[in-house]
Amino acid sequence: MKVEGRQYRTIALAEDGWSINIIDQTALPHAFVTRRLRNLDDAAEAIRSMRVRGAPLIGATAAYGVCLALRDDTSDTQLKAAIKTLAATRPTAVNLAWALDRMVKTVGPASAEKRSTTAYEAAARICEEDVAGCRAIAEHGARLITERWKTRGDATPIQVLTHCNAGWLATVDWGTALAGIYLAHDRGVPIHVWVDETRPRNQGAGLTAWELGQHGVPHTVVVDNAGGHLMQHGQVDMCLVGTDRTTADGDVCNKIGTYLKALAAEDNDIPFYVAAPYASIDWSGQEPEIPIEHRNEGEVTQVTGRTNDGKICTVRLTPKQTSALNPGFDITPARLVTGLITERGVCPASREGLLKLYMEKGR
Amino acid sequence: MKVEGRQYRTIALAEDGWSINIIDQTALPHAFVTRRLRNLDDAAEAIRSMRVRGAPLIGATAAYGVCLALRDDTSDTQLKAAIKTLAATRPTAVNLAWALDRMVKTVGPASAEKRSTTAYEAAARICEEDVAGCRAIAEHGARLITERWKTRGDATPIQVLTHCNAGWLATVDWGTALAGIYLAHDRGVPIHVWVDETRPRNQGAGLTAWELGQHGVPHTVVVDNAGGHLMQHGQVDMCLVGTDRTTADGDVCNKIGTYLKALAAEDNDIPFYVAAPYASIDWSGQEPEIPIEHRNEGEVTQVTGRTNDGKICTVRLTPKQTSALNPGFDITPARLVTGLITERGVCPASREGLLKLYMEKGR
Repeated sequence: MKVEGRQYRTIALAEDGWSINIIDQTALPHAFVTRRLRNLDDAAEAIRSMRVRGAPLIGATAAYGVCLALRDDTSDTQLKAAIKTLAATRPTAVNLAWALDRMVKTVGPASAEKRSTTAYEAAARICEEDVAGCRAIAEHGARLITERWKTRGDATPIQVLTHCNAGWLATVDWGTALAGIYLAHDRGVPIHVWVDETRPRNQGAGLTAWELGQHGVPHTVVVDNAGGHLMQHGQVDMCLVGTDRTTADGDVCNKIGTYLKALAAEDNDIPFYVAAPYASIDWSGQEPEIPIEHRNEGEVTQVTGRTNDGKICTVRLTPKQTSALNPGFDITPARLVTGLITERGVCPASREGLLKLYMEKGR
Repeated sequence: MKVEGRQYRTIALAEDGWSINIIDQTALPHAFVTRRLRNLDDAAEAIRSMRVRGAPLIGATAAYGVCLALRDDTSDTQLKAAIKTLAATRPTAVNLAWALDRMVKTVGPASAEKRSTTAYEAAARICEEDVAGCRAIAEHGARLITERWKTRGDATPIQVLTHCNAGWLATVDWGTALAGIYLAHDRGVPIHVWVDETRPRNQGAGLTAWELGQHGVPHTVVVDNAGGHLMQHGQVDMCLVGTDRTTADGDVCNKIGTYLKALAAEDNDIPFYVAAPYASIDWSGQEPEIPIEHRNEGEVTQVTGRTNDGKICTVRLTPKQTSALNPGFDITPARLVTGLITERGVCPASREGLLKLYMEKGR
């Protein structure tokens, strides 16, 4: 995607051929800052502190984290330690485990001399596949949006509500939920996006609004409380969100608050779609319960933003002694999901639905 | 209620016998500031800028606003102008119209000489009735909480989720939804309250958390997105909220986001109660649609809080050009409400339910 007219990806090999450039998303929307990852710790820290975030991008960053770890030491011990460190950075997104698993399977069998090169090639492949996958999701998403717009039968903009950021900042490029919005917009479908601010980290207010602004897509930020009211008043034609982990049965684990929007969509007969890349689908079915990340309570009690005179400032919202709980994700049961938008097309949020697209998983 | 051990009401006649003391709620939770209202404009400004807020307290403040307006000029013209100014301050809460209507009916027939005294007496009566009403609601609320706690059958704290602030800060004293919590707590029922932060104005994080802290009730702040997840995980035993306007059919207009919590409560079989004082019930049934206040978009795009070094600071969360929509309330349909807690007891959220308690309204 373009930032101020220049082509960018959220993660890319630097000109030196080994270090990794990322966009530091904690600085957005107030400043556009890139950052260099030079070793395993840099990569782990970037994921943990959410300089990079979004399930697909977390996976890509972890893959490059393995590359950086193997630069000086290609031993099994080093590989194992790197995987362990990276796997512990964020527990919920399945893409992280998926990417690390793939790195182990690709890099593990390689000879010590070839491990580093193999790792860089594998990480680059993960990134390229992510871009291609998101591009395919964009196509299917844009089709859904266009159909919905045509069904409505008037020329006013189709109103899409989204939660958190499932845009190109959450992936290597294009995005998942927002990908279809960009493509439909580029093709001339009039769109207006309701952007949930997405407390506590405000990925909607800070990242999605910024992305949509860069791309020229009309949008309005609302507090997370407002979506139900908008739906009751016919101001939302469809909901479109991403996912950090979708079970093989179609339950969707996504940013906290997604479940509430899905309930409101159902209550108001509004389609609720989830853009679910292959790598975010948890085929294992073994996990008795999806691990929900609990983050620092300071993310709830304090907010960081930009003052009128340009300073970045953190302010406390609660009384001093007040404590907070900060679960990062919730689970939207499959029954509330109209459909999953995957690389291979749109399917019902169910095992049968997924297996029709991914027949190889049914064997 | 007590603040730092001293007895307070949110609004009271000052020692001079004519001006009005309020607590400036825009300074909370970071500073406890009282403020003097000396004329109609002070009162209107206090309501408009939410120095006083909460449906019952808005009504009480408007009543005293009429008193202040009549001090120098007790003419019909002055009375009419005062009512008009005050009625326009906030459109949604029905208490405002109710209190003004009552003031007109009481003050209107009085002679010019007696109008000022009559007004002060009427305003004081509105306040006393509010306190008595809230005390009665406390009793019924505490009974519900205690029953629910006993039904659960273990000694661990009952978990109550609340939205916005329906505490003593929203009334003259005691509160509505929180009143029952205070009373049950005082009687030894172990309670823990989940406090929705309640964006955009953070009345939960700022006011409810502060109130509960002053009273010593255990509580934890969560973002508005988190309640559904908590309910899915058995961490909420009941929801308890206030109302700005309840229709005679039991539909509840309350702070934006209430509807989403009611949906989640229904989806997880959790009782959802609304503390509805008599004065917040809209018996007219004439209004085709409840007017929903839309407030300044700056309340969404910016947040005010306290920096580590004690300064009050406003920060922007969105990109500069981003616009926002800020509806202040939503409507929870009666079907999602387990019961209304009124001064006269608990009833189903329906016309029949309300008329059983308020038979005089059925005539």
